[in-house]
Amino acid sequence: MEHTRIKELLNATEFGHEVIVKGWVKTFRNNQFIAINDGSSIHNIQAVVDFENTPDALLKRITTGAALRVKGNLIESQGKGQKVEIKVNELTILGDSDAEKYPLQPKKHSLEFLREIAHLRFRTTTFNAVFKVRNALAFAVHKFFNDKDFVYMHTPIITGSDAEGAGEMFRVTSLDLNNIPRTENGDIDFKEDFFGKSTNLTVSGQLEGELAAMALGNIYTFGPTFRAENSNTTRHLAEFWMIEPEMAFYELEDNMDLAEDLLKYVIKYALDTCPEEIEFLKTRLLEEEKNKPAAERAELNLIDKLTFVLNNDFERVTYTEAIDILKRSKPNQKKQFKYLIDEWGADLQSEHERYLVEKHYKKPVILIDYPAEIKSFYMKQNDVDANGHKTVRAMDILFPGIGEMVGGSQREENLDKLLSRMAEVNIPAEEMEWFLDTRRYGSAPHSGFGLGFERLVLFVTGMTNIRDVIPFPRTPNNAEF
Amino acid sequence: MEHTRIKELLNATEFGHEVIVKGWVKTFRNNQFIAINDGSSIHNIQAVVDFENTPDALLKRITTGAALRVKGNLIESQGKGQKVEIKVNELTILGDSDAEKYPLQPKKHSLEFLREIAHLRFRTTTFNAVFKVRNALAFAVHKFFNDKDFVYMHTPIITGSDAEGAGEMFRVTSLDLNNIPRTENGDIDFKEDFFGKSTNLTVSGQLEGELAAMALGNIYTFGPTFRAENSNTTRHLAEFWMIEPEMAFYELEDNMDLAEDLLKYVIKYALDTCPEEIEFLKTRLLEEEKNKPAAERAELNLIDKLTFVLNNDFERVTYTEAIDILKRSKPNQKKQFKYLIDEWGADLQSEHERYLVEKHYKKPVILIDYPAEIKSFYMKQNDVDANGHKTVRAMDILFPGIGEMVGGSQREENLDKLLSRMAEVNIPAEEMEWFLDTRRYGSAPHSGFGLGFERLVLFVTGMTNIRDVIPFPRTPNNAEF
Repeated sequence: MEHTRIKELLNATEFGHEVIVKGWVKTFRNNQFIAINDGSSIHNIQAVVDFENTPDALLKRITTGAALRVKGNLIESQGKGQKVEIKVNELTILGDSDAEKYPLQPKKHSLEFLREIAHLRFRTTTFNAVFKVRNALAFAVHKFFNDKDFVYMHTPIITGSDAEGAGEMFRVTSLDLNNIPRTENGDIDFKEDFFGKSTNLTVSGQLEGELAAMALGNIYTFGPTFRAENSNTTRHLAEFWMIEPEMAFYELEDNMDLAEDLLKYVIKYALDTCPEEIEFLKTRLLEEEKNKPAAERAELNLIDKLTFVLNNDFERVTYTEAIDILKRSKPNQKKQFKYLIDEWGADLQSEHERYLVEKHYKKPVILIDYPAEIKSFYMKQNDVDANGHKTVRAMDILFPGIGEMVGGSQREENLDKLLSRMAEVNIPAEEMEWFLDTRRYGSAPHSGFGLGFERLVLFVTGMTNIRDVIPFPRTPNNAEF
Repeated sequence: MEHTRIKELLNATEFGHEVIVKGWVKTFRNNQFIAINDGSSIHNIQAVVDFENTPDALLKRITTGAALRVKGNLIESQGKGQKVEIKVNELTILGDSDAEKYPLQPKKHSLEFLREIAHLRFRTTTFNAVFKVRNALAFAVHKFFNDKDFVYMHTPIITGSDAEGAGEMFRVTSLDLNNIPRTENGDIDFKEDFFGKSTNLTVSGQLEGELAAMALGNIYTFGPTFRAENSNTTRHLAEFWMIEPEMAFYELEDNMDLAEDLLKYVIKYALDTCPEEIEFLKTRLLEEEKNKPAAERAELNLIDKLTFVLNNDFERVTYTEAIDILKRSKPNQKKQFKYLIDEWGADLQSEHERYLVEKHYKKPVILIDYPAEIKSFYMKQNDVDANGHKTVRAMDILFPGIGEMVGGSQREENLDKLLSRMAEVNIPAEEMEWFLDTRRYGSAPHSGFGLGFERLVLFVTGMTNIRDVIPFPRTPNNAEF
């Protein structure tokens, strides 16, 4: 390896020696100043060409996007805007870039346009910053759990089970769709399929995670999950990454503490390790918001928003309390909500979550003890309360601008209660024997949650469309690259 | 959180105080000694019950697999086999386990049997150790790359592209198989499918990884990949995890250095952080090998084997040199190979790789410069040699007992050479425009490789069937749990 990464050179404290850099031209000014980037930093290094002694034919090839090898002396810069620069002694074009055709011109491109050329958008400063922050958050997740002795589990992607007992799933098959095998009575013969049964892409690793937690104690998953839902919004993807810890002997309080600790840890880690990237993203967001009416702009800038989350306890509120607040709220009284809240049991819509988080509490909120009816079968059932309400030990963590960031619960550890709830919602016990075995043999209180990774990245980067925080988004009618 | 993890108590240096543990009964001897495990360690803690003052009804419920809460004083043990124990003051059954029905009796079970109950096998010492080592290796991979400033990329799982230009793929669809939409001329109308096109599960994130590397510099993936191949062997899975780094400005030598460094780093990390687990697995393997004829037993025990890999350079050998060695080898001369090597160009079979690694060099081998004909289209083409041989800058890393652990190459950065190779192997350029753009705009030398994570875990744990190192294996006719 003969070259040095630009990030290191930008932080250099010694000068004069000869260095080699390899990277891509961002801009070339006055036939003299090349801004070179190699991806290691959002900042470029300036290389100064002795244009009088460089052949014209070579100078013409220094175009935006071209790959260069530059050998020269690292010096303290005289110019504004940079501390160091390279006085070029030798310049080689590694790969040309036709300025007429190169889609990334040195100007501002819209995020929509860049989405169309997602294979090239990594080359922009914005996406360099976004994917550096995404990387930092992913590492922070692993480090957080590793420091706490959790075991990282790879739960299966291809599965015969539907963890949520709901949710539209993608089918996985190796059958020839032009010649689907049939049984004698005309049904599709899945015995002929690769796995000898009908299989889908997982919607959650939770149930398998529980199996591992009830043996290893504390585990987490971090892997892709899938929803075949036709929702074209700025917050949904058909393929997204999820983090799902499951902990034996954790009750709901422990679960909330862990989730809050995790979120604060990873946000702090990103702030600590990506200060330049987050500063850039803060400015980008301020620029973007200039186009909005003042009332729609965020009250806090990106860094202040992240710092605020770190420095404040999340508000822990029961569903019943939340319904009371919403009932009495202005937008409910003035019928400004699209879905008015008039009785206990209503499922909360995005507008209600946003009211609670952004208007009422003005910070992240952990909503607990939801009605059993609107939550999954595996959640621990509370005793019926004085008003006859059946609730479960669910917890959803709601974040400003994002909505649901985390969904979790204490799990129902009582076999009989679990079976009766499964019967109510028509989940056949015989297909879930393996799951039920955890309640048959040494059952114990346990809890877990799921954190949508892209929503976390969205929050920390201040980007506004989830398609812009995953390298190659999969959404309805879109699986390019 | 009122309880303390058993791992901490086993390392205690202060005694006398009261502690609470929660865990599962491994064994219960003499109505007095409970071995309790909570998953935090492969070792149990002994809890001593005052059986004379404990109701019989409660003692009867202390069965293998039952979940307990035990409160008692931590004391230095008088007995053999443990340093600390708990003198029980209070014992609560959290969850019973019917001794008659519990599948995991306190005896040795075969790995085959445990595979059938993969949802419970985490509770055995062997699988506790295996999944702790797997966890350590996964974290080490992230730490290695994070320390080197590589960016972790989540390349897409659902894809329209086939990276290898080969390999049988699983189809992903949301079409109703009982009512497949057709176009006017009778073809399947994939416009009606979720993504508006035919999609599959990825076989590799490499091509997308290259896009990112040619902007961010150094990236890696670590995610699930899939093969719909009907191979029922001890080394193949239909769903497995792969690590795929891609580096701009790396040539083949740099690529080899990185791969060797990575493998040594993660093996050392596992040895350093999982000494008890690896010691246990070493002993397990020695026990298993007692059933084999002496000639088939490994020459080195597990720890010595791992240490040997750390302390020796991998042998770097060209394909041409390897063919010469194989031609002149005893098993070739004596016609003991199933596939005899008689001319340059032959694809190497497992028997040949094993001969090179296990008999000839007796250490990991990096084979480079393979015939272009037997390698993928995207590998950098060498100049035709004096014998008229066309080779590519491929590298396969072969490990004893495993075979191919890593497959990689320097990538072909020259657009024209890449296009002509694609034409030769019938890969339509128009479907790969996004990939070709990296060679159109600022192309540069770059390299990468893929490391099969389960093969790594297999090597480090000394397990012999790949189904035993992934939580829930997916193989032909098997997608249980």
